[in-house]
Amino acid sequence: MHVLIIGAAGMVGQKLTRRLVADGHLDDRAITALTLADVVPAPRPAGFGGRTTVLTVDLAAPETAAMLTGARPDVIFHLAAIVSGEAEADFEKGYRINLDGTRGLFEAIRIAGLAAPYRPRVVFTSSIAVFGAPFPERIGDEFLLTPLTSYGTQKAIGELLLSDYSRRGIFDGIGIRLPTICVRPGRPNKAASGFFSNILREPLNGEEAVLPVSGEVRHWFASPRAAVGFLIHAATLDLAAVGPRRNLSMPGLSATVAEEIEALKRVAGERIARLIRPQPDAAIAAIVAGWPRDFDASRALALGFSAETSFDEIIRAHIDDELGGRIAA
Amino acid sequence: MHVLIIGAAGMVGQKLTRRLVADGHLDDRAITALTLADVVPAPRPAGFGGRTTVLTVDLAAPETAAMLTGARPDVIFHLAAIVSGEAEADFEKGYRINLDGTRGLFEAIRIAGLAAPYRPRVVFTSSIAVFGAPFPERIGDEFLLTPLTSYGTQKAIGELLLSDYSRRGIFDGIGIRLPTICVRPGRPNKAASGFFSNILREPLNGEEAVLPVSGEVRHWFASPRAAVGFLIHAATLDLAAVGPRRNLSMPGLSATVAEEIEALKRVAGERIARLIRPQPDAAIAAIVAGWPRDFDASRALALGFSAETSFDEIIRAHIDDELGGRIAA
Repeated sequence: MHVLIIGAAGMVGQKLTRRLVADGHLDDRAITALTLADVVPAPRPAGFGGRTTVLTVDLAAPETAAMLTGARPDVIFHLAAIVSGEAEADFEKGYRINLDGTRGLFEAIRIAGLAAPYRPRVVFTSSIAVFGAPFPERIGDEFLLTPLTSYGTQKAIGELLLSDYSRRGIFDGIGIRLPTICVRPGRPNKAASGFFSNILREPLNGEEAVLPVSGEVRHWFASPRAAVGFLIHAATLDLAAVGPRRNLSMPGLSATVAEEIEALKRVAGERIARLIRPQPDAAIAAIVAGWPRDFDASRALALGFSAETSFDEIIRAHIDDELGGRIAA
Repeated sequence: MHVLIIGAAGMVGQKLTRRLVADGHLDDRAITALTLADVVPAPRPAGFGGRTTVLTVDLAAPETAAMLTGARPDVIFHLAAIVSGEAEADFEKGYRINLDGTRGLFEAIRIAGLAAPYRPRVVFTSSIAVFGAPFPERIGDEFLLTPLTSYGTQKAIGELLLSDYSRRGIFDGIGIRLPTICVRPGRPNKAASGFFSNILREPLNGEEAVLPVSGEVRHWFASPRAAVGFLIHAATLDLAAVGPRRNLSMPGLSATVAEEIEALKRVAGERIARLIRPQPDAAIAAIVAGWPRDFDASRALALGFSAETSFDEIIRAHIDDELGGRIAA
């Protein structure tokens, strides 16, 4: 089977690629070809016996989608997006990539199917940014999508298109709303959500991290490992069981920053946790106050999606996957 | 003030035009210019003192939206759409008019505003087709949009774009989800919902009408007169009170077909009601079973929108507005 990953150079895309290569199959079908598309070259995975094609392309450019679907991949992971901050700062770019790029992909699949039967599995990563305050303490599977960013709007539109194209039989699509990914590997960045990862990752590296909000702040998390698990499960799940509502809030862990720090103490010790330096930032606190705190992800859980149930697990996954099992001395 | 109606030749567009001309103003501002756009020529209203421009245009054609917004209308009513059945039968046409046409209009407003400040009021007619079964007996203001038609999908996307463009300050938009309009004037048509109007309108004209479903079927209604009232109120309402959620389910009347017939008997007599001929149609019954039955339109009611509260009122509005106050002898 041929697997296409759009957005393959990103953090989740790279981890998904490594997992697919390690497994060698999806749902008992051997993976014989991998196409890795992104605006920058995705790393070529080591140890893959099949054919790997690395494409440096802009999804929203004319002909890109037709070229990608022309090879008729069996499974398409569509992870590519302009992130929230950039889509807010650059209105035209956000709509061009996140809306036109997604719709262009879906249209290219439809047009490929007019020539000869073609109905791939499409796994689309959506986001909890489709929800905007005010919302209930726990957001259920039937709560209204009320994005308060252009990014969230574009993801919500992608969800609607995915459902309609699936209902029409154009492809077999599933959209998964990822929790905030934690611990995000790499260097600290300027994203307002960065501190959730920074306060774990930097101390585990023996470095200081700034905490801009109070310990009572509650948010919704899953590890990069869980995110890859969602994608694999979405690619192999029997979608007849999902029905016409093709977009699902993924399971995750609802936890406060204080609980996050307590888990760090348990897993890595008090000395590591003392590297977190509180430095309140009213601007960041105001942004985070508008974010979801908890979900009732009943549908996804019933369909077999699973995530961590404690921050201890999330931290241990990071230590295993990123630090070779070792914490800074 | 300059008012633009896109979709002015339709039933609601024509009634809105007549109401605007009769009122002569919107929210204390005199209407000095009316632009009536549609794919077929809208009737030129009698008795209007201002300038009337009738445009026969395709909203989705290149340059149409820029031409319409180039005149910088103060209020834009966007009523134009490919209806549900046609959007389902012709996938490309539905997306072209209902999605690309709407987005093109919103983009033309944005681009006009880049040249010189421009922030019109935009009133967008959405539909209860944004909801699809299963849903609760009464659909509240926070219930998930789950369209089960391409038309409903396109309207839901229009709602999301309207909210985002409004949040960005590009225009001041409000989307209103119309109930099923009853009594729809004109001849019987093949729409699956047609019988709700036919069983009142035809007997009131002294003609037989076919009833394809059982009396227990419940649905959600407002008169054409109420629909025009929603549009006028939406054009004049203080949108600061609406907040970022710019799309509202309009109030209406939840009633069964049996209640509809009882009202006809009360208003027009048993003899008229005997012109309704039951002729069960399983296909129509199956379609209608997937439609909303009742709404809790609390937000719209709190914002001052109002509709009929009995079928007697709906029937009397039809007799007054369409039959000159007279029932067939």
